[in-house]
Amino acid sequence: MKNAAIGVDIGGTSVKMGVVGPNGRIVCRSNFPTGRHAKKSDVLDSLYEHSRSLTAQAKKAGFRVTGVGIGAPGPIDVERGFVYSFPNIHGWENTPLRKILEKRLRLPVRIDNDANAMALGETLFGAGRGAKNTIALTLGTGVGGGIVIDGKLFHGPTYSAAEIGHIVLNEEGPQCGCGNRGCIETYVGNGYFVREVRSRLAAGEKSVLKRWIEEDGRELTPYLVWQAAKKGDGFAKKFWWETGLHLGNALVGLVNVFNPEKIILGGGVAQDKPHLLDSVTRTIKKKAFPIAARSVKVVPAALGVDAGLIGAAALVLAADPKRGRRA
Amino acid sequence: MKNAAIGVDIGGTSVKMGVVGPNGRIVCRSNFPTGRHAKKSDVLDSLYEHSRSLTAQAKKAGFRVTGVGIGAPGPIDVERGFVYSFPNIHGWENTPLRKILEKRLRLPVRIDNDANAMALGETLFGAGRGAKNTIALTLGTGVGGGIVIDGKLFHGPTYSAAEIGHIVLNEEGPQCGCGNRGCIETYVGNGYFVREVRSRLAAGEKSVLKRWIEEDGRELTPYLVWQAAKKGDGFAKKFWWETGLHLGNALVGLVNVFNPEKIILGGGVAQDKPHLLDSVTRTIKKKAFPIAARSVKVVPAALGVDAGLIGAAALVLAADPKRGRRA
Repeated sequence: MKNAAIGVDIGGTSVKMGVVGPNGRIVCRSNFPTGRHAKKSDVLDSLYEHSRSLTAQAKKAGFRVTGVGIGAPGPIDVERGFVYSFPNIHGWENTPLRKILEKRLRLPVRIDNDANAMALGETLFGAGRGAKNTIALTLGTGVGGGIVIDGKLFHGPTYSAAEIGHIVLNEEGPQCGCGNRGCIETYVGNGYFVREVRSRLAAGEKSVLKRWIEEDGRELTPYLVWQAAKKGDGFAKKFWWETGLHLGNALVGLVNVFNPEKIILGGGVAQDKPHLLDSVTRTIKKKAFPIAARSVKVVPAALGVDAGLIGAAALVLAADPKRGRRA
Repeated sequence: MKNAAIGVDIGGTSVKMGVVGPNGRIVCRSNFPTGRHAKKSDVLDSLYEHSRSLTAQAKKAGFRVTGVGIGAPGPIDVERGFVYSFPNIHGWENTPLRKILEKRLRLPVRIDNDANAMALGETLFGAGRGAKNTIALTLGTGVGGGIVIDGKLFHGPTYSAAEIGHIVLNEEGPQCGCGNRGCIETYVGNGYFVREVRSRLAAGEKSVLKRWIEEDGRELTPYLVWQAAKKGDGFAKKFWWETGLHLGNALVGLVNVFNPEKIILGGGVAQDKPHLLDSVTRTIKKKAFPIAARSVKVVPAALGVDAGLIGAAALVLAADPKRGRRA
């Protein structure tokens, strides 16, 4: 029997679960719906039920479940496994989740926020494999991230480190939701990205996007802008290039301070956009300190939609001294 | 006999040495001149001689020297104790300094760059006492710094982490010597500070500084600007306030990412300027994430001119498991 862990990725619309083996592969999986108004006790009941059934399935496949890792959509006291709140799911304020789960599941439980779980999962089993010092960014609605130092997640003494999206890139830049100006998030977060494109189009920039949105009724997303860029649209190309430059400039600072081996870019803005990686990489090589710039690689996330689930399991697997090296 | 360490602070004009006890107090000290063109072999000979004599003095005072720590003015491979170069002292390129010294001194030797040594010294024995996660900045000609995580210096895998002066604060900001724009150093480094004051005065700003410089022949330094501010000079006050705001904005990003317990400000720009600390603190409390902002204190460096020497010894003392808690 090989040791394995259950990963639980709690999202705003569903909970994804799976048993993950010591090499990061998913042995078996399941999921159940949740939502803004799902009852906490119902979610917990489903979680127990799915854990039991997954454990049984895994056993048949030759895996012993040694713990449960949870990636949670909100701030966590990692040490105590205590949920402060889930901003997008009601009713989880001040929940001693680890204590509740360990009592019922009779397995060790580890909880971290989903951005950290993703960072650990990608580092151990995805794009970061082989590296022990990584920075992972998820470019989505906001910009989340996690930092791995010496193979371990870096939390800071009050578990609020790694808010990478809120490094100030331009103190005179756009207003950010956090109250600051010019945070990274205001340049590469989806919301800001779309708002800025829209306002430039309204200001008269010429682009195929105008027709796509106004005549064809397509939704303005970073992906749509990317499609326009691929078709050679000058405005879209320039906008993506600017985005890469902003992100690159922000990462230069992180490279100078963290000296990471790999920077892993995941999420909507990063997917399938090799030239964003290119422009970020070029900016770092040109502007960061030479030794640090030479030793860092910028890579796209590799685990896709399973990053959260595998990352959650990684919270347990990383702590297992018996975890073998990957074949 | 108590364990102690010799600290060696290699500077551009002199080498300061001292035996430092387990509580960070200097037991005895000495120093000898060096300079841009000092011969390496002469410097090494003096270093041996002073080590011997300091060891004997320490013994009489009841201290056993268990190692030698060196704060070096240039990039170091900390693992191997290898000096890449000292930008301001000729002839030290690619010197396996630890190997050379350990052979001759027959004591364990640890080497790190002076900014890191200072950060460790201040954290263990100075302004950071009691904290295990600190960021220390030296605001001098440039902006140097060190980061302590969980009581240990953070180096990064290729020993080039913690270049705090070169986090980008404004990608459209002033040109920095490192090739980038708007690094922290371009706002709070002495050189940039003085240049900017001079150019604003030349552009017609009214200030008592003009008379002080032009009629009284006083040298324009951050300290002079500070004296003008203390006398109520509007321009000088505003300029210091802006500097605090820039520094504060940069530190907001570091607080969001590192979640430190203390930020220690040392060096020329920080000394004796409580209102700089005030404006930095206020900016952090206002703009950083609440949990991280609440848990951080901004404090002035406490070890003064001995920070380098005590910090160098701290490289050895921190590694000594017998090092007692401070009384």
